[in-house]
Amino acid sequence: MKFEIVYKSNRSSARVGKLHTAHGIIDTPNFVAVGTNGTLKSLDNQTVCDIGLQLMFCNTYHLLLQPGSDTVKKAGGLHRYINRPMPIITDSGGFQVFSLMYGSVASELKSKGAKATRSSVLKITEEGVLFRSYRDGKKILLTPESSILAQKDLGADIIIPFDELPPYHLDKQRLKHSLDRTHRWEERSLNCHLKNPNNQAMYAVIHGGVDQNLRQMSCDFLTKLPFDGFAIGGSLGKTKQQLYDLIAFLSSRLPQNKPNHLLGIGDLKSLATLIPFGIDTFDSSYPTKAARHGLLLTKKGGLKINKADHRHQFTPIEPDCLCPTCKSYTIAYLNHLFKSKELTFMSLASIHNLYFMVNYMKEIRNKIFNDEI
Amino acid sequence: MKFEIVYKSNRSSARVGKLHTAHGIIDTPNFVAVGTNGTLKSLDNQTVCDIGLQLMFCNTYHLLLQPGSDTVKKAGGLHRYINRPMPIITDSGGFQVFSLMYGSVASELKSKGAKATRSSVLKITEEGVLFRSYRDGKKILLTPESSILAQKDLGADIIIPFDELPPYHLDKQRLKHSLDRTHRWEERSLNCHLKNPNNQAMYAVIHGGVDQNLRQMSCDFLTKLPFDGFAIGGSLGKTKQQLYDLIAFLSSRLPQNKPNHLLGIGDLKSLATLIPFGIDTFDSSYPTKAARHGLLLTKKGGLKINKADHRHQFTPIEPDCLCPTCKSYTIAYLNHLFKSKELTFMSLASIHNLYFMVNYMKEIRNKIFNDEI
Repeated sequence: MKFEIVYKSNRSSARVGKLHTAHGIIDTPNFVAVGTNGTLKSLDNQTVCDIGLQLMFCNTYHLLLQPGSDTVKKAGGLHRYINRPMPIITDSGGFQVFSLMYGSVASELKSKGAKATRSSVLKITEEGVLFRSYRDGKKILLTPESSILAQKDLGADIIIPFDELPPYHLDKQRLKHSLDRTHRWEERSLNCHLKNPNNQAMYAVIHGGVDQNLRQMSCDFLTKLPFDGFAIGGSLGKTKQQLYDLIAFLSSRLPQNKPNHLLGIGDLKSLATLIPFGIDTFDSSYPTKAARHGLLLTKKGGLKINKADHRHQFTPIEPDCLCPTCKSYTIAYLNHLFKSKELTFMSLASIHNLYFMVNYMKEIRNKIFNDEI
Repeated sequence: MKFEIVYKSNRSSARVGKLHTAHGIIDTPNFVAVGTNGTLKSLDNQTVCDIGLQLMFCNTYHLLLQPGSDTVKKAGGLHRYINRPMPIITDSGGFQVFSLMYGSVASELKSKGAKATRSSVLKITEEGVLFRSYRDGKKILLTPESSILAQKDLGADIIIPFDELPPYHLDKQRLKHSLDRTHRWEERSLNCHLKNPNNQAMYAVIHGGVDQNLRQMSCDFLTKLPFDGFAIGGSLGKTKQQLYDLIAFLSSRLPQNKPNHLLGIGDLKSLATLIPFGIDTFDSSYPTKAARHGLLLTKKGGLKINKADHRHQFTPIEPDCLCPTCKSYTIAYLNHLFKSKELTFMSLASIHNLYFMVNYMKEIRNKIFNDEI
């Protein structure tokens, strides 16, 4: 993978770049949609490629349990298995395994640190994590090496080293302990990857929670290793302001000549706030999840499709939008499909929101070119 | 609407025809897919048109309650509202209203005539049926005239007169009573329709259950009226054999120069059995419902996608199928999507089954041309 910086803004740290991968170019800054099981929910990959989504995030944890990385390998890799000739990024599985233990990020924040009750994690050692498959009850040992080998089977263009996702509610000593192990795991992941680079790029994951000292340590440790890019992970804080402060702190500490990625953030406000700090890619299930729940993205803000006065609105979601949904269907009809609980609504709404994101990022890049960002 | 008989088989009563409507031609014999709320479940109408489905069935009862026929009229009619420039047929709402009373056909057969417990039907009089909307609790009076006026608002190419759906378990006297009223209702519907034909065709619905005398009476009464075509409705029997016997009996009693339609039947066995009797169109939600439940139609029979040995089958559902699903996705991937409970599976499977039906009917027409049917 080659990262080419095409333009640097004269107004901020924002930059326009091109990630050259074996499966095509990813223009940055860009939005990365999440297709956990190898598909965006309610959409098929041909449609997603037609919309122009340049990078899709798939979850190794889910694909390991179903259909299994061996099946994907037999199919000739994830691109062929799911029919996506364009770039793919996979994570390590660490995030999901530890989410099982501590609950999701949101529920963990609410629970103030209490462990999730239905934990499937059996044991964490220096070697890795032993957990039980929710599908068939089988015990699975996930280690830096097994995660990377699985990601080799999947064959995504960008892969992620195995890390621990420490909960937000953790004292500094235990957070430091977790960070050190994560660093050792990431280094083992990198070593395993470099034995067979396989045309894949590996992004390190910067950890350290909301503690600036630990984040600095993580940058110091990981940027010395030959990673191809840097993802920002771990706890990103409880509030948007904590997130913004963290990125402001980290952005100047990341190598400027390498791509970076912010994990799990994709709302428009955060994108607008964080791109000026030089963040290149963002992944989030927010735009497609919002679509399924009836929230359509427009330049004027979110449009709630279930509002009664949409019933007679015989115009597209956005008059100048060229997405397949806006070209063929009206707000009135979408309101009807939503009220009728038709699955068709979910597809049409997801198509629009995804198209919106792809074009929103195009406009962001144009604004950077014009020093407006 | 003009019905043109293009070819009559020399082997059976099967015929190839063309129904010329304001929204295009329907080749017969043909399969009619059901899009109750103005959409086939999990598909959008652009996709359905691209597949080549020539006639789509929408339910007046559902559209009356949501979004209301006034809304559809304001949109410029159903074709524009749902973005389907091709032909549409609507029913009268009678079937659904009486299904509320007696339960669905299947559940009524099982219940041996016990009324459905959650009946919303308040009163049946000579005027029509008073029922309560399941959406907002409002009382609605559906009469032959109000059904036809609603169908005028919707503006489908083919419409259906208001009828009573008597349950299978009914003694002959009460069935005769129901039949007489249905005939009066159908005549009132026709008179209402003829005041403003509006480029719509109206098919009568032949009733009489499985009683040959009553069916004969129904043919005698309805074929004397200037209907554009004849649908076969009411109870079609408990077994496939009863259905086949009924169609064998009726087929010679229907005007040969007018199109006919068999309501609610669309499995491949019945199509193959009944087309030789000269049946022109069949509507059924079976192919799309089967798709959503993981049954894919192929020339070699049904393929159950959840079978474990499909996991490594990296070939399309049918190697020579040109549908969007078979062009892009493998059985292995579809098996994975189904096991992962992804909505994407429902769309991809529905696309294939619908495409299969469209092509199956093309082949049927070719076989009739060659006197093979």
